[in-house]
Amino acid sequence: MTKTSRQPGRTTRERILTTALALFNQQGEPHVSSTAIAAELEISPGNLYYHFPNKEAIVNALYDAFATEMGTLLDAMEQTRSGPEEIWLFLHLMFEAIWKYRFLYYDISTLMSGYAHIERHFPVLLRRKQHTAYVLCDTLTAAGLMQADANELTALARNIALVGTFWISFQRAVHPHDEADIALGVAQVMQLVAPLLQPEARRYLQSLATQYTSVPNHAVTKGE
Amino acid sequence: MTKTSRQPGRTTRERILTTALALFNQQGEPHVSSTAIAAELEISPGNLYYHFPNKEAIVNALYDAFATEMGTLLDAMEQTRSGPEEIWLFLHLMFEAIWKYRFLYYDISTLMSGYAHIERHFPVLLRRKQHTAYVLCDTLTAAGLMQADANELTALARNIALVGTFWISFQRAVHPHDEADIALGVAQVMQLVAPLLQPEARRYLQSLATQYTSVPNHAVTKGE
Repeated sequence: MTKTSRQPGRTTRERILTTALALFNQQGEPHVSSTAIAAELEISPGNLYYHFPNKEAIVNALYDAFATEMGTLLDAMEQTRSGPEEIWLFLHLMFEAIWKYRFLYYDISTLMSGYAHIERHFPVLLRRKQHTAYVLCDTLTAAGLMQADANELTALARNIALVGTFWISFQRAVHPHDEADIALGVAQVMQLVAPLLQPEARRYLQSLATQYTSVPNHAVTKGE
Repeated sequence: MTKTSRQPGRTTRERILTTALALFNQQGEPHVSSTAIAAELEISPGNLYYHFPNKEAIVNALYDAFATEMGTLLDAMEQTRSGPEEIWLFLHLMFEAIWKYRFLYYDISTLMSGYAHIERHFPVLLRRKQHTAYVLCDTLTAAGLMQADANELTALARNIALVGTFWISFQRAVHPHDEADIALGVAQVMQLVAPLLQPEARRYLQSLATQYTSVPNHAVTKGE
């Protein structure tokens, strides 16, 4: 991890964020102090505080970077008139972004009650995810690939947002000591959509899901 | 709240548990100390410590009471060969039990990392919930009411356990300052099952879900 944080040309600010993200993802945000981040970087706490006045400022900066990545993806998803294959790709990209900043998903309530910035902005992002899920499924319905009424679409979109958001927490609750495999999370969300698809689209999605989850040590986690 | 904790004939131990549960549900377990529980009961901390050596012992006792209630329900669910109506009733009863001990569901990871007893036992309960969901859906399939293969049933059972477990966290993340309505949680789980049911059973479940969520201030929360 220290290797990536010492690439030449990267600013101290960037190195602090990269190292903090890696430590938060490894140990959980509550267990990592500013001092531990400075120690990992081999810089003085004073140097760290010059860039970020406290740990909250680091957490907020990481949250903003995450929200920007998700926002770009959600925009792209809504603008593309997608079929099942594009939706699979987008799901994969969203889970990649969630995985990269996964410490945000270990315990969202605790994080929200500790950081006013996240408490204010996370619910907005969550409602946007739900809205995008609705738009995508509505597109599938209009294209004749899915069969569902407005109530079913609303419930489906809510379940997609819920499973997407809490899949990492669920895996950690079932297997407290294992690393979660994001391919299984993508497949879990696919399985919410599949039963409402028309037979051909449903078979296609099932075959994608099977291929997707049968690749061991999935490439998605590379570069972590 | 103090009214219920002062009913005549109840032991101090029971009153401590009732009051702790109410405070944990209101404020979240991390924000409630043993001293605050003693103060609410108007007993000395020494009297409280005579019954429970620390807050962990209180949390563990409440977890065990919850696990016993859930265990009884899961046993009953597996032993009854259920149709959609019975499943709806069981879902309702499970959400009632979760609601009664909802502080356990505010932030499961944090609770598991703080309490070894819960870290050891919660994953077992979660796997059991998933197993029971599988058995129930398998029964519906065998009765010709549901159409799904073994992979789809496994994914469905996992999503039922996930949505059932994290629905309260999801509601709190979307609406941080509102009390969650458990009827919506039951309806959300129903919507996972509905698309795999045969048309008649699906229409029946949808009408149940609509009736269920249209009752304002649902009776379930009475007596809290």
